[in-house]
Amino acid sequence: MASSQLPEITCTEQAQLEELYAAFDAAHMKPLWTEIGGLMPTTPQPDSVPMLWRWSSLLPLAERAGELVPVGRGGERRAIALVNPGLSGAPYATPTLWAAIQYLGPREEAPAHRHTQSAFRFVVEGEGVWTNVEGDPVAMQRGDLLLTPGMHFHEHHNTTDHAMAWIDGLDIPLVRTIDAGFFEFGPDELATKETPEVSRNERLWGHPGLTPVGAPTPKASPLMAYRWEHTDAALGAQLELEREGRPGVVEPGHAVVRFTNPATAGDCLTTMRCEMHRLRAGTSTALTRTAGSSVWQIFEGAGVVTVGDARYEVGTGDLFCVPSWAGLAFDTDAGLDAFRFSDDPVVEALGLARTAHEDRS
Amino acid sequence: MASSQLPEITCTEQAQLEELYAAFDAAHMKPLWTEIGGLMPTTPQPDSVPMLWRWSSLLPLAERAGELVPVGRGGERRAIALVNPGLSGAPYATPTLWAAIQYLGPREEAPAHRHTQSAFRFVVEGEGVWTNVEGDPVAMQRGDLLLTPGMHFHEHHNTTDHAMAWIDGLDIPLVRTIDAGFFEFGPDELATKETPEVSRNERLWGHPGLTPVGAPTPKASPLMAYRWEHTDAALGAQLELEREGRPGVVEPGHAVVRFTNPATAGDCLTTMRCEMHRLRAGTSTALTRTAGSSVWQIFEGAGVVTVGDARYEVGTGDLFCVPSWAGLAFDTDAGLDAFRFSDDPVVEALGLARTAHEDRS
Amino acid sequence: MASSQLPEITCTEQAQLEELYAAFDAAHMKPLWTEIGGLMPTTPQPDSVPMLWRWSSLLPLAERAGELVPVGRGGERRAIALVNPGLSGAPYATPTLWAAIQYLGPREEAPAHRHTQSAFRFVVEGEGVWTNVEGDPVAMQRGDLLLTPGMHFHEHHNTTDHAMAWIDGLDIPLVRTIDAGFFEFGPDELATKETPEVSRNERLWGHPGLTPVGAPTPKASPLMAYRWEHTDAALGAQLELEREGRPGVVEPGHAVVRFTNPATAGDCLTTMRCEMHRLRAGTSTALTRTAGSSVWQIFEGAGVVTVGDARYEVGTGDLFCVPSWAGLAFDTDAGLDAFRFSDDPVVEALGLARTAHEDRS
Amino acid sequence: MASSQLPEITCTEQAQLEELYAAFDAAHMKPLWTEIGGLMPTTPQPDSVPMLWRWSSLLPLAERAGELVPVGRGGERRAIALVNPGLSGAPYATPTLWAAIQYLGPREEAPAHRHTQSAFRFVVEGEGVWTNVEGDPVAMQRGDLLLTPGMHFHEHHNTTDHAMAWIDGLDIPLVRTIDAGFFEFGPDELATKETPEVSRNERLWGHPGLTPVGAPTPKASPLMAYRWEHTDAALGAQLELEREGRPGVVEPGHAVVRFTNPATAGDCLTTMRCEMHRLRAGTSTALTRTAGSSVWQIFEGAGVVTVGDARYEVGTGDLFCVPSWAGLAFDTDAGLDAFRFSDDPVVEALGLARTAHEDRS
Repeated sequence: MASSQLPEITCTEQAQLEELYAAFDAAHMKPLWTEIGGLMPTTPQPDSVPMLWRWSSLLPLAERAGELVPVGRGGERRAIALVNPGLSGAPYATPTLWAAIQYLGPREEAPAHRHTQSAFRFVVEGEGVWTNVEGDPVAMQRGDLLLTPGMHFHEHHNTTDHAMAWIDGLDIPLVRTIDAGFFEFGPDELATKETPEVSRNERLWGHPGLTPVGAPTPKASPLMAYRWEHTDAALGAQLELEREGRPGVVEPGHAVVRFTNPATAGDCLTTMRCEMHRLRAGTSTALTRTAGSSVWQIFEGAGVVTVGDARYEVGTGDLFCVPSWAGLAFDTDAGLDAFRFSDDPVVEALGLARTAHEDRS
Repeated sequence: MASSQLPEITCTEQAQLEELYAAFDAAHMKPLWTEIGGLMPTTPQPDSVPMLWRWSSLLPLAERAGELVPVGRGGERRAIALVNPGLSGAPYATPTLWAAIQYLGPREEAPAHRHTQSAFRFVVEGEGVWTNVEGDPVAMQRGDLLLTPGMHFHEHHNTTDHAMAWIDGLDIPLVRTIDAGFFEFGPDELATKETPEVSRNERLWGHPGLTPVGAPTPKASPLMAYRWEHTDAALGAQLELEREGRPGVVEPGHAVVRFTNPATAGDCLTTMRCEMHRLRAGTSTALTRTAGSSVWQIFEGAGVVTVGDARYEVGTGDLFCVPSWAGLAFDTDAGLDAFRFSDDPVVEALGLARTAHEDRS
Repeated sequence: MASSQLPEITCTEQAQLEELYAAFDAAHMKPLWTEIGGLMPTTPQPDSVPMLWRWSSLLPLAERAGELVPVGRGGERRAIALVNPGLSGAPYATPTLWAAIQYLGPREEAPAHRHTQSAFRFVVEGEGVWTNVEGDPVAMQRGDLLLTPGMHFHEHHNTTDHAMAWIDGLDIPLVRTIDAGFFEFGPDELATKETPEVSRNERLWGHPGLTPVGAPTPKASPLMAYRWEHTDAALGAQLELEREGRPGVVEPGHAVVRFTNPATAGDCLTTMRCEMHRLRAGTSTALTRTAGSSVWQIFEGAGVVTVGDARYEVGTGDLFCVPSWAGLAFDTDAGLDAFRFSDDPVVEALGLARTAHEDRS
Repeated sequence: MASSQLPEITCTEQAQLEELYAAFDAAHMKPLWTEIGGLMPTTPQPDSVPMLWRWSSLLPLAERAGELVPVGRGGERRAIALVNPGLSGAPYATPTLWAAIQYLGPREEAPAHRHTQSAFRFVVEGEGVWTNVEGDPVAMQRGDLLLTPGMHFHEHHNTTDHAMAWIDGLDIPLVRTIDAGFFEFGPDELATKETPEVSRNERLWGHPGLTPVGAPTPKASPLMAYRWEHTDAALGAQLELEREGRPGVVEPGHAVVRFTNPATAGDCLTTMRCEMHRLRAGTSTALTRTAGSSVWQIFEGAGVVTVGDARYEVGTGDLFCVPSWAGLAFDTDAGLDAFRFSDDPVVEALGLARTAHEDRS
């Protein structure tokens, strides 16, 4: 019971209790009654905290790493992770999500490997890198979402004379927690140096509502590139429909598309949800709380975002994280597009999803 | 037991048996042992037969109906069904599938109704008609597949000065067999006379791998128009991939896309599968037998099709049906595109799917 | 359009129409507008009719067949089907369901076969027969439901000196309609003559909520015997809970259990639902209409059943069928138990389920 | 890149790197290349370690807590958790599983609460406590597994003059990691003091293969008590079948039943798998590695268990944990029964399941 409710106890009783607790320690035991508030809080009490990382800070440091640190076997990737200050120094943006800026210099290559962790790349600016997924070269361009489902060999190569940076999202913390990570090196040589505009997986799976009957049946998403052209059109259509008085948006001025696996209609990755949000100029969203955590990157435009008690002015490239159950709201005069990824599929698969909306007006 | 195995019986025994069988009749009973071969054949013995309907015969008759028969409330649609000669005069192409040519004259309208039967339209030629599905106007153009899921109000209007014909596919026979048909008239006036190029359902759902988060969650396919532009590109890509030595086609020279529900990744309709097939010039397919029946329409090109013991030279617009377990094969010098619809989702849902392939070389 | 709405037409027009309809016939076509009322009725208009078969009529005829007709290879089973008078002489109880009384004399054997049709046996009285399903001997006793999922070899043998009769239910009409029936003979000799009290499938799967981890994963229900002891207890508990003011019954005085596949929690057979109903003494049920058809057998007790316009006094062993959308209601002074099987899983899988309840008070 | 592969660097370069790393720190960033081995190991490298807790140590300490610490609002339960020494003092048996001994003295009550965490109780010895789950009193007896699905109010009361101890399993660490825990107090007064032998949920759902049609449709398992009588019979049957040369066991001499949700056929809890294992006398199992962690309690019998590099002689009541990918094997002369719970449903839902077997002979 809570100590506040304990009747006063005598010195003898106190000594007996201390002896008991020492015996617990020695036996590798710990009582629930002294810990329950921390273990089972009334509402989520995350260790992670709201945090903002500015693109204007990240990019120069990534460039500097490009000058000083080679890419190659062992370190594998020139990726620099976002560190949530609440998580004891672990390189995690949230307890389940790893987010990083990755940087590939002119003509550089990152060697092949594969792992049970799921990954994606999102491109806030630039182009010129191809990521080969199981030997299928996938161009990376502004606004694109590119997937690397678990246990798919992948390697990157920059075919241009300029560097390119993008963000990576992985489920490293979650997989680390449940100790389900396996990792393998691939060949040191690139599987292919082809640079097609359209990848093979897109040619098979990138047609709306059309399933290729002869294609191998995949367990993970067979579509591994979601192009900005389509995302932009889909978001634009939702706001147009809203103007016409038709359903489509999630709330006034707020369009959302989710990136999904066309072979299952589920999330594009088993452990991470990816979405693009578009806020019309002049929009203020409701305040939303969600069980589970997310990371956002502003893709275009600007605005003010509220995360729990924090309030950030954000613009293109800026990243921030939203701890579980922290209130989240946007206000934007100019309008903005923002990429979001989260552990929603995990929370939902475990039957733990919960959301609350608050009107701020 | 089979009569061949019966021991010889006496006149008395014969009389007793006849008396028993008469008693069965009177009691509304029928023995299995005299019927089992017909009820439970070793392999399917369909009543329906292979049959060809030439577009060059269908279209003039539909045009003549356009001159003589008005469209309106009661008759509802100027649709003329294909009749399989094996099915005792029922207007069914196969025991589960209804197929018809529908014809709408210049400026004509077909009034709104809805029914539990699922329906689609496929356009082999022409344009100028909009089908309004729950008030959402959907343009009908060459090569397009347009859905009307069960219990969606729908009406058609021709906005041009020329007539248009297309084919309708419905699950009327199946729904009739299980007596699950419900039908309602809608308003006599058109819900809308708008003629947008792109329907609202396409604007929300017609983007590859992108799910609109704010859209109402449908039970049936929320995407109700599959445009030829996408179908053509998807088929072309499969054959290109084959040329590059990559997987994609179902067999050499044979590309197939299935029209699917983007909200579930399942078939576009609960009771009918729709597919487009493309055969490269010079292709001869394997002979395939499938439990369940289908109807095909040649969309473009020409070839020879074998269905059971029948062999047809087919060209654009020609329709034929494939009874259950009839061997089906194509040979084409020029190449061809063909639309197929079938009761595969029914056969699969009931655990009765079976397929066999035979090499014809 | 309906003829009542046609404007008056001239003799010339009439002749032209007749010429057109003759051309349709010649081209194997049939217009929708003259047929739509039959094809797409406002509510289901089944050909099948309500029908009662009394056990007191069925059993003596089955016994007489036992004297006159041997069981053996070819005829396979001494089963006599219930014939619905509305179905043109086909040996079908409803358009989707086949029901029969099967009779096995003392020491008789019915040889092994298998087929894609799903089957069950329900025992209204008697014992002494074992049905071997894939070599697993399953005792048949009063009140038991025994399954034979599709493509499982099965054979029956009577190990006693008295005859036994029971009812068989199969999806023969449905499988016939979609032409998906395949049939194979098994060995002429019995696979086993063992007569255990409990079958192997029950020993593995017949424990509530317990899944055997090492057992082969089945596609069909791995539990193939549902014993009266459990069914009776489950029904009794529901009525007790009702008396205690707790949820459990489907309506006042009306308990129902559904026989389900413990490996999927779905229906025990893919194409047929099986249930046992118990009505407390003095119960009058609501009138219920359901899309799809069913067959019932009174297991114990007596009452009056209303099916559409028919009204039957029924007692132990009596069978009746319920066509689609016919109103069904029970009134019982003494209380009764009734076994029901239906095509509900088919109707539900196809998205066509619909039910209506009417208060009769 | 791995430091071993780095070319020698100059003092200047070293200084520049240190400056870069300091800048990373200041910007809340951390490079992947120095961390990748820990973040993404080749095979799981759990922090948790194999650990044994002897019942003979746990029980006296629980009894002593019974003397010194009252049960009541605030502390909620007299439960003492097992602490894995590898997890930095957190009261977790593994990174995802919380396990505790709970102790309730004569006539004591533990007040009602509910939480999103899923819970179960397993009774290694004793009886006399009822756990009321949503007001349904569930007797707790030797060998029984009792569920408390997430957000079900529950309370315990001991109706006897003797104390009772059992083990609790919860997903506290997992829910804490993803910050999805919500907790509510219930009324201070017991919902019921009834002590029925059979709970209402068992009366509705505890019949093999029988689904109560009128019962409310649950999201979590509607069956919340799995009785030893059934578990024992199911395990015995598997070993009997093995003796008869029939399938059933998972490996020679090793029977396993999984506790499942009869409404879905899935695991009894969304986040935890529960199983009972029985090893025949003289059995040595294969060595098995599994991605994900588990906790075991010996229920009866004795043997030697190998977990990674540890080797324990175990008997009734002893508990041990198995970290991810640690090799697990049993050797028993006398035979034993063991209860296991694990995070398998989580690992499987996330697509991360992996198992390896090694022959030890």
